[in-house]
Amino acid sequence: MKNWITIALLLFTYTFSAQTAFSPSKQITLTFFLTANGEPVYEVLYKNKSIIKTSSLGIKLKEGNDLTSGFSIDSIGNWTVNEAWKPVLGEQSTIKNHYNEMSVALSQKASERRMNIIFKVFDEGVAFRYEFPKQKNLNYFIIKDEKSEFNLTGNHKTFWIPGDYDSQEYPYMETKFSEINTDNLNLNNGIGLKTIFSKYAVQSPLMMKSEDGIYINIFEAAVVNYPVMQLDVIPSQYKLTSHLVPNAIGDKAYLQTPCVSPWRTIMVSDDARDIVSSKMILNLNEPSKIEDTSWIKPMKYVGVWWEMHVGKATWDYAGSQNAQNVLTKDLIPSGKHGATTANTKRYIDFAAKHGFDGVLVEGWNVGWEDWFGNWKEDVFDFTTPYPDFNLDEINAYAKSKGVKMIMHHETSGSVANYERHLDRALELMKKYGYSAAKSGYVGRIIPRGEFHDGQTMVNHFNFVARRFADYKMMVNSHESSRPTGYSRTYPNYIAAEAARGNEFNGWSNGNPPMHETILPFTRLLGGPMDYTPGIFEVKMSLYDKAKKEQVHTTLAKQLALYVTMYSPLQMAADLPENYEKYLDAFQFIKDVAVDWQESKYLEAEPGDYLTVARKDKKSENWFLGAITDENARTSEIKLDFLSPNKKYKATIYQDGKSAHWEKNPINYEIKTMNVTSKSKLKLVLAAGGGTAISFVPIN
Amino acid sequence: MKNWITIALLLFTYTFSAQTAFSPSKQITLTFFLTANGEPVYEVLYKNKSIIKTSSLGIKLKEGNDLTSGFSIDSIGNWTVNEAWKPVLGEQSTIKNHYNEMSVALSQKASERRMNIIFKVFDEGVAFRYEFPKQKNLNYFIIKDEKSEFNLTGNHKTFWIPGDYDSQEYPYMETKFSEINTDNLNLNNGIGLKTIFSKYAVQSPLMMKSEDGIYINIFEAAVVNYPVMQLDVIPSQYKLTSHLVPNAIGDKAYLQTPCVSPWRTIMVSDDARDIVSSKMILNLNEPSKIEDTSWIKPMKYVGVWWEMHVGKATWDYAGSQNAQNVLTKDLIPSGKHGATTANTKRYIDFAAKHGFDGVLVEGWNVGWEDWFGNWKEDVFDFTTPYPDFNLDEINAYAKSKGVKMIMHHETSGSVANYERHLDRALELMKKYGYSAAKSGYVGRIIPRGEFHDGQTMVNHFNFVARRFADYKMMVNSHESSRPTGYSRTYPNYIAAEAARGNEFNGWSNGNPPMHETILPFTRLLGGPMDYTPGIFEVKMSLYDKAKKEQVHTTLAKQLALYVTMYSPLQMAADLPENYEKYLDAFQFIKDVAVDWQESKYLEAEPGDYLTVARKDKKSENWFLGAITDENARTSEIKLDFLSPNKKYKATIYQDGKSAHWEKNPINYEIKTMNVTSKSKLKLVLAAGGGTAISFVPIN
Repeated sequence: MKNWITIALLLFTYTFSAQTAFSPSKQITLTFFLTANGEPVYEVLYKNKSIIKTSSLGIKLKEGNDLTSGFSIDSIGNWTVNEAWKPVLGEQSTIKNHYNEMSVALSQKASERRMNIIFKVFDEGVAFRYEFPKQKNLNYFIIKDEKSEFNLTGNHKTFWIPGDYDSQEYPYMETKFSEINTDNLNLNNGIGLKTIFSKYAVQSPLMMKSEDGIYINIFEAAVVNYPVMQLDVIPSQYKLTSHLVPNAIGDKAYLQTPCVSPWRTIMVSDDARDIVSSKMILNLNEPSKIEDTSWIKPMKYVGVWWEMHVGKATWDYAGSQNAQNVLTKDLIPSGKHGATTANTKRYIDFAAKHGFDGVLVEGWNVGWEDWFGNWKEDVFDFTTPYPDFNLDEINAYAKSKGVKMIMHHETSGSVANYERHLDRALELMKKYGYSAAKSGYVGRIIPRGEFHDGQTMVNHFNFVARRFADYKMMVNSHESSRPTGYSRTYPNYIAAEAARGNEFNGWSNGNPPMHETILPFTRLLGGPMDYTPGIFEVKMSLYDKAKKEQVHTTLAKQLALYVTMYSPLQMAADLPENYEKYLDAFQFIKDVAVDWQESKYLEAEPGDYLTVARKDKKSENWFLGAITDENARTSEIKLDFLSPNKKYKATIYQDGKSAHWEKNPINYEIKTMNVTSKSKLKLVLAAGGGTAISFVPIN
Repeated sequence: MKNWITIALLLFTYTFSAQTAFSPSKQITLTFFLTANGEPVYEVLYKNKSIIKTSSLGIKLKEGNDLTSGFSIDSIGNWTVNEAWKPVLGEQSTIKNHYNEMSVALSQKASERRMNIIFKVFDEGVAFRYEFPKQKNLNYFIIKDEKSEFNLTGNHKTFWIPGDYDSQEYPYMETKFSEINTDNLNLNNGIGLKTIFSKYAVQSPLMMKSEDGIYINIFEAAVVNYPVMQLDVIPSQYKLTSHLVPNAIGDKAYLQTPCVSPWRTIMVSDDARDIVSSKMILNLNEPSKIEDTSWIKPMKYVGVWWEMHVGKATWDYAGSQNAQNVLTKDLIPSGKHGATTANTKRYIDFAAKHGFDGVLVEGWNVGWEDWFGNWKEDVFDFTTPYPDFNLDEINAYAKSKGVKMIMHHETSGSVANYERHLDRALELMKKYGYSAAKSGYVGRIIPRGEFHDGQTMVNHFNFVARRFADYKMMVNSHESSRPTGYSRTYPNYIAAEAARGNEFNGWSNGNPPMHETILPFTRLLGGPMDYTPGIFEVKMSLYDKAKKEQVHTTLAKQLALYVTMYSPLQMAADLPENYEKYLDAFQFIKDVAVDWQESKYLEAEPGDYLTVARKDKKSENWFLGAITDENARTSEIKLDFLSPNKKYKATIYQDGKSAHWEKNPINYEIKTMNVTSKSKLKLVLAAGGGTAISFVPIN
C-alpha cells in the first residue's frame, strides 16, 4: 500500500463538501460526501448520467459503536496511478493498471476511532474499500454487518443467481430488476446443497443493462480474510445492500487493525466489451507473492471423469451397498470403478498421442462408497488408493509417456479433515511428481455450521493455494467460493469452477444456451474457470436410451468455448472413444492455446453472444471463438487483429447448415482459407451454436 | 468386542421380566427391565441397599423416532470375563479385569431399529453403554440428547464442580447434593474462559458419600467420537441426567453404525480405597493400538514455566505493546523473555546435574505478544522460534548433556490452526529429536462455536494422540477435555492437565488444601494428571511483596504429591534457584519413581486425606505419600506392603513441628530409620501438610 497519508497531508483540506474523483477518461465521476449526521455516502455518474444514486457506506460492529455515522473527514488524498504489469498466465501478456485514487480519512468522535474509505476510479468502473488503520481504540474487532449500498437508477435488465451461502451453481435468471425473487426459481436443477437465505437476494458478480443501453456490473475484488459479499435486494426500490456470509455463530468477519475490506466494484460502460475485457478485478489484487513462478504452467488435460458423469463408470470401487463402515480390505468391487490402473493407462496413452499435458483421475482414493450427503467428517485421507489403482505403476507409466498426472482431492466439504491431511497429501504428490491437483467441496462444510462462502472458507481456499505454492504445485478448486482475483497474488491458484459448469448438462436440466454468454460477464471476471468444455457426444441417450439430458450447445460451440471461456487450464472433457469418432473437430482442441499474448473482444452482449480473438503467447497463432445463445446468429467480423504483414491459414470449425443445439447438435463443418488482417469473415452460428477458428501464419 | 450374540442365542429367553447381573463378589446387583411402554430402565443395589433407583436409559435422535421407548427385548447375553493385562506405564504392572457382562438386545418396532445396552458389573461398580449395531434402518445418525439417568437414594455429600462446556479448572465444592447450585460459586477464581450452562449442572467424575458411609462415583469411560457427558441436576429429587456437550449448531454427536457410546460408570463401595484404586475406567477402554511401545517412557522434568507464572519472566518476547499486527522482525524485546537460549541452558544444566529426563520450555515460539483473549485464528505456527531462542544450539546442548527437550504447543484454542500445522510441528520435533510435547488450549475454540468438551474437540485430542504416535512421540495436553482412559489405547497420551492444577496457586485464589485429596477420586480416575507439584517457595510474596497468593500446602505436602498424584510424567515445577535452597528436600523429587510395580492405597477419604505406597517398577524401592486437607492429622500405618524378608532404609520428609500450610509452610524435617514389613510408622501431618517417604532396601 502506498503511503497515501503523505500525499493527503499535502492536499489537506478541512471540508464537508462533496469530494469528487474522475476516471482517467473523465467519463466516470465518483462523488463522496458526509451527510448531516456524518454518514459516509457516494454517487457514481457515467457520461453525466446517474448510475449509482446516493448510497450509504459503513460497517456495523459486534461490539461498540457502528462505523456508519458520526464521522468527520480528517483528510482527503488524491493521486493517479498508471502502470503495467505482466501476469504469469493470462488473457494478455501485459495488463494496464490506470486509475485515479481518492482516499478519505474519517474519524468518529464518539468512539475515537478512525476508518478510511479508498476509492479507485478506472475507465471501466469504480472500486472502493474500507481501511482500518492501526489505532489505539481499534485492534481486534468483529464485523456484524457491512452496509455498502448500491442504489440503482432504473429497472435494469438483470442476470442473477439467488443469494446462497453454499452454491453458485445456478443457471442465470434474466429478468427485470423488479422481478428478482428467488421463489420463482426452478430448484430441481441438480444442485446438491442449497442455502438460499432470502427471497430477495442475489450473488455478485451481478450483471445488468439499463434501458438506455448502459452495462453495469457489481462485484468485489481481493476477498482475503473476509466473507463473500452477496447482495440483499429491494426490487421495487432498485436497491442493493451488501450481505456478508455469516459463520457458524452468525458473525461475519474477525479482523485486526491494520486491515482492509475487499474492494467493492461497480463497472459501467455503454459498450459491453469494456466489461467483459476489464482487468479491474485483477488490478485490485496484490501482485504475485510467489517469486519464482517458472513452475506455474498452463495445462490442457483429459481425465477419468466424464465417464462417471454419464454413468459409464463410478467414482467408488465397491458401490453403496458396501458403504456402512466397511474396511477397505473388505470392500467387494462392483466392477464399474473408473479409476483403475488399466483405464488410467488408456487415458495416458490418449493424452500422449494427442499432445495433452495432463491426466486427471477422480475416484482413485478410498472413501467414495458414501462420500456425499452424510455430513461425515473423515471421508477421505487423500493418500490411500483403491486396491485397483496402482500409484507407482501409473505414475511411472505417465512419466514414460511424458504426461503429468493430475491429483484429485475431493473433500466432501469436510475441510477440517482436509486441512489435517493436506501436508501428507502434498507429500504424496511430491513423491510421485504431481504438479497440480483438482480439489472439490461437494457437501455441507465441516467445521459444522460454516458455509462455503464464509470467512473461514475463504481463508481455507486461500490457505490451500499458499500451501500448494510451498510445494510448487498448482490447484484448481471446484465448489469453492468464486474467485475475486486471488490468482494474481497466488498464480498457482490456476483455475476454479465456482459456477455452473458443463457437467450439469450431463445429469440435470443443464445449462441453457445463453449460459456461456453470461459467465464471461460474471464468474470469469474474478479468475479462470475450469468449465470443462469439449463434450462432443452431447446427448446422454448415447449411454442410456432413456436419458433425456443433453449438452445445450452444438459441437462447434463446445470448440468455441476453449476461446470464449478463458482459462490457462482447459480440459478436453469427453471420452477418448468419443473424440476418436470426430478427430477432425478434435484437432481444434489439440491446437488451441491456453495462455495468451493478447485478447480482442470483437462482439459481446450478455445473455446473447460473445466473439473473442486471442493470440497465443508462444507463437503468432490466433484463435477465435464465437458463441451465441438459443438464437441463431450471423455476423461479419474484421480480422484486423491479425498482424498486418502476415498471411494466415484459417481453419474454421462451424455449425453445419442444419445444426441446432437440440435437434442436430453434432452437425458441423470444417473449412480452411487463407486470410490477412484486411479480410472479413462471415460467422454463421446455429441456435445454441458457435464457431472456432485457428489462424496459423503461412511462412 | 466379543461375539456376545453367539452366547446370547444360547441363553435366549423371551421375557419382559427384570434381568439381573451381579458383580463377581455378588455385592453389587444390577437390574434391567423394560417399563410397560417399553422404556429401558435400570437399578443398582450395593449390599442390598439401593444405590441407583429406577432410572431411564435412552438416546434422542435429531431425526426419526427417539430411541427411548417402545422397545422389546430380542435377547439377553450373559458372561464373565476374568483376565489381566499389563499397562505400558501405570500404577501397577498388572491390571485385573474381572466383571460379569449382561448384554440386552433391544428392538423398536415403530422404527424397525435395534439398539443394545451392555452392562458390565465389576466389584467396584457398574458400567453401561449403548451399542448401535449395523442395520438397515440406522446408518448415519445425529444424537440430539442422551437420557441416561442416575436417580440417587439420598442427599449425599457431594464433591462437585459446575457444568461448564469449556473448563474443569474449578476448585471442588463440598455440599449436600440438595445444595448444588452454581450461583453459589466464587467465579473470581482465575479461570480465563467459563461456559457454565446451567445453575443446576455438574461435571463428572462426580464423587459422593451417602449418610450411611457408601461412596458413589459417577463418571464415564472411553469417550471416543462422542462429546463429554456432563450432568443436569435436580437437587431436590437427588436426580442426575446426562447432558452431552453440544457443537456449534446444537447437535451432540454424529455417528454411523456400527458404533457405541462411551461407558457410563457408577462406582460404589463402603471403602473409599476401592474407588480411588479402581482400574475400572482403564479396563473399559480398548487395549493399546500401538504395537511397539518401547519408545513410551516415563519422564521427570523441569522447565522454563513457573518463572512466567510468578512474574519473573514472560512468555512473550516483546510485550503486549508490540501486539498489534507487528512482524516478528520488528518486535522490540522487552528484556523479560523467559525462553532465551541462555536461560534454557541454565535449566538444561540443572536437569543434567540432578538427573531429570527432560526440560520443557514455554514461550519459545513467536506469537505470545497477543496470544490470548482475542479469538484469533492464526496465533502460532509451532515452528518459528523467537530470535533469542536458538533451536540448533539448545538441542545440541541438551543432547550433549543427556537431557531431552520437551516441545511446547500452545494453541490458544485455535484448533483449526493447530491441525493445519501439526505435521510440520511434528517434523520440526523429529528434526531436533524431541520425544514429547506439552499442548495447551487456553481460550475459546476455533472452529468458532465449538467447545472444549464437544465431540469435535474430543476427536481432536484423540487425533493428536494418534498423530504423535505416528511419530513415536508422547503428548501431555493442558486445557483438554478430561481423560476417560484413552491412555490405555494410546499410551503415548502420557498425561493431561484437565483439572485445576498447581499453577492456580501462583496467581489466583488457588487450590484449597482439600483439593489434592479430591482429585484422585475424580480427575485421576480417567488418567494421569500433569499437576506440576514441587513448589517449594509457596509464597508469591517472595517475588513481589504485594502479592498475597500462595500454594495452599506445606512444602512436605508438595513432596507427597509426587506419590499421591499418579502420573508417569512429573514436573519439578519450581525454579532451579529455589531448589538450590532446599536440596535436602529436593532429594525426594530426585529419588521418587514415576512408574510402578504396584500401588497400595492405605488410607483414603475424599476431601480429607489420602495415603498411598507405591513400588518402583524398576527396583525394590517403595515410596509413600500421605496428604491431608486443612486439618492436621496423625495416623499410624503398617508397613506390611514391604517385602517380608527385606530391611529398608526409610527417609521420611515430613512437616516440621510448627508447620502449617498458611502460617509456616516451609517448615519441614527429614529423618531416616531402618524398617521392615513388620514396622509401623506414625504419620504426623500439619494442617495442609503431608509426608513423603522413600524406602530403599539395605543390601
